[in-house]
Amino acid sequence: MPPETLTPERILEATEEVLRRYGPAKATVVDVARALGVSHGSVYRHFRTKAALREAVTARWLDRTSRQLSVIVTEEGPAPERLDRWLTALFEAKRHKAGDDPELFATYMTLIGESGGVVDRHVTDLEAQLTTLIEAGVSQGAFHTPSPATTARAVFDATGRFHDPCYAAEWSRPGIAHDFDAVRDLVLRGLRS
Amino acid sequence: MPPETLTPERILEATEEVLRRYGPAKATVVDVARALGVSHGSVYRHFRTKAALREAVTARWLDRTSRQLSVIVTEEGPAPERLDRWLTALFEAKRHKAGDDPELFATYMTLIGESGGVVDRHVTDLEAQLTTLIEAGVSQGAFHTPSPATTARAVFDATGRFHDPCYAAEWSRPGIAHDFDAVRDLVLRGLRS
Repeated sequence: MPPETLTPERILEATEEVLRRYGPAKATVVDVARALGVSHGSVYRHFRTKAALREAVTARWLDRTSRQLSVIVTEEGPAPERLDRWLTALFEAKRHKAGDDPELFATYMTLIGESGGVVDRHVTDLEAQLTTLIEAGVSQGAFHTPSPATTARAVFDATGRFHDPCYAAEWSRPGIAHDFDAVRDLVLRGLRS
Repeated sequence: MPPETLTPERILEATEEVLRRYGPAKATVVDVARALGVSHGSVYRHFRTKAALREAVTARWLDRTSRQLSVIVTEEGPAPERLDRWLTALFEAKRHKAGDDPELFATYMTLIGESGGVVDRHVTDLEAQLTTLIEAGVSQGAFHTPSPATTARAVFDATGRFHDPCYAAEWSRPGIAHDFDAVRDLVLRGLRS
């Protein structure tokens, strides 16, 4: 059997596994290479530095959420209903990431602290999705705003309690779903008015 | 001249000063007593433990903001305009606390981490003020909600980016005033609709 080709995706998968096993303080590129049965030089051919590798694995982790949400943006249908689902799906995705594997979540929080740029791109991506949804709502006559991009940012900020990791500890609290509903309703009412 | 009476307020003032000078890790009740020229027993007659003293000084620091804001709640006038001023004043107060004396702010953040109950009471107090404003808006026919308390909490959550200390680093960013305006407008539109 020929050896599997060493793709960036395989390296990132192995990196996540190594991070999960050793934690962000101890995980090295040599550990990743060993897990893949290749030399560390082979890893460095795809990711020129350890920092670049860590940034790429963090971006991949964040992108999983963006990709899930982008499906809702490309669908047809009334924008208010899709925006509702989008906000709900964002909260769900973040809550699962924090709650299902708290150690991996803590690891990614450490990586995020190392490279702010990755998060900025993630936020830009999510705000762009929101802008598209709000523009759809405006052209359907359901939403009213002179600047969909400004309003998208306001919606993102106003719902921060339900997607910003600084609130992760609250997401398993009883009553959090009720709090989310109240904010989402207020935001949707603001957009419709 | 007779010695000044040792009041709780004087002890709390001295405690803040001692915390500012030595930091939360090193400040002791003995330091506070020394600053006041009294025995530490005299301090303990007012605050039974070091933890109680630290909690009281933190509550006092938070209450300064609540008291400022409560003036707006007791005024007459259209509720939307007062809610607007209330949210703006909350953001201003928090921003000043964080920006004018960053070391003292960091000290209080440490104290807050030690005693969650003080913050819970502060948030309850602010949400009660918001509830009163929203009830006023409902009786003026300006706001529409079946549950002012639920909506008050939603307004508080939706504006968290502009009062929750986990965002303090953002409050000196250019563009933050624009972001605040966008969220406040969205929230007010939601309440009016």
